[in-house]
Amino acid sequence: MAKLDLHNLLLNLPLFAGLEEADIQLLLNGCREVRVRSGGHLVERGTHCDGFFVVVVGKLKLSIPSASGQEKVVELVGPRQSFGEAVTVLNQPFFMNAQALEDTLLLHFDRKTVLQLCAQSTSFSQRLLVDMCERWLGLMKDVEAFSLQSAAERVVSFLLERPLESTDNGFKLELPANKNLIASRLNLKPETLSRIFSKLTCAGHIRVDGRTVHIQNPESLRKLDLVVH
Amino acid sequence: MAKLDLHNLLLNLPLFAGLEEADIQLLLNGCREVRVRSGGHLVERGTHCDGFFVVVVGKLKLSIPSASGQEKVVELVGPRQSFGEAVTVLNQPFFMNAQALEDTLLLHFDRKTVLQLCAQSTSFSQRLLVDMCERWLGLMKDVEAFSLQSAAERVVSFLLERPLESTDNGFKLELPANKNLIASRLNLKPETLSRIFSKLTCAGHIRVDGRTVHIQNPESLRKLDLVVH
Repeated sequence: MAKLDLHNLLLNLPLFAGLEEADIQLLLNGCREVRVRSGGHLVERGTHCDGFFVVVVGKLKLSIPSASGQEKVVELVGPRQSFGEAVTVLNQPFFMNAQALEDTLLLHFDRKTVLQLCAQSTSFSQRLLVDMCERWLGLMKDVEAFSLQSAAERVVSFLLERPLESTDNGFKLELPANKNLIASRLNLKPETLSRIFSKLTCAGHIRVDGRTVHIQNPESLRKLDLVVH
Repeated sequence: MAKLDLHNLLLNLPLFAGLEEADIQLLLNGCREVRVRSGGHLVERGTHCDGFFVVVVGKLKLSIPSASGQEKVVELVGPRQSFGEAVTVLNQPFFMNAQALEDTLLLHFDRKTVLQLCAQSTSFSQRLLVDMCERWLGLMKDVEAFSLQSAAERVVSFLLERPLESTDNGFKLELPANKNLIASRLNLKPETLSRIFSKLTCAGHIRVDGRTVHIQNPESLRKLDLVVH
């Protein structure tokens, strides 16, 4: 892989937008590249990472393992997304496993540098605060979905939140991972997700072709009464 | 109720500990008392509150309502606990309903003041950041429990997290709310919670007397194999 223009990269990450040159230099000094092959484990739960990560290219699965060998997929993270900020601030071990789903390049930002930057740059500490507030609200929306939405409502919301691409007779989207991971992300059993895909297909709302899902009319899908599905 | 010594109160709240006198004065100017009777609604989801709340005395239920009239209890908050920080920072409407379970006195901190304090006090903005990181991690632990723990594991964890008071032949604790609210907090149906209480009672691990739960041996309760319950 070619040598990264880290300086330029940092300037274009939402978390670091608007930082002064001196702050960017500080970050550069406390940052290193990390590469993980597809399938490789970047972090195991319980590990101290002394910093957080930003994905440059690739994709990772963040999941909580259980003693019985099950896992709960919490998030799928891709380019420009970060993870590990909370445990970095709190100086705690990682709460989740992070495994690469593709060959992935990340940047690791050292804890000491992050704390120093927090103390000297109001702009950065506020950006980090906004980032954590957004994360909290996102997780709260997950809790709402798991607790109050039917399985079919969760699936339809998940589909309609993806970027849609228009086609000759409607729209299409790419699933960001295989169906087992998506089922876990939505707190569903894989067979429940398959059943819902089948029902939506039989009713003519979607057509599934590998990881591509065709949707003829997103609006009518949004308006379906899914409570009892 | 007697006039509050707000100045002293603020100094003793974890969120404001270590603030300088000028910052405390700023907070005092942007803060007001709010009283809600038991059963009264402080905030409905979707309302802009332009600030966040700290409970002085009393107790509230924070819950997410659903279109079908169900609700998911997310948190029970009591004295010295705060809520609404994330939506205050993000300038968004409240995500949850807040209803008083007892006569409750709160302080409301105005958004403008909070943002001004964030900008001028690194100490405060870092404390708020730590607070949000802890909240995120707490919610993540809830997601783990809902997704990967059995119903009985959730109930036992909930009991063992309460403050235990020793008695002549073991320990006791007070449930912080009625069983329906606790069931919702743990993502359980009320009848599931009752069934688990009955099983634990029959096996001699607990004795339930209204809102008081007697536990003879917390350690043996902690070590129970609850996966299949």
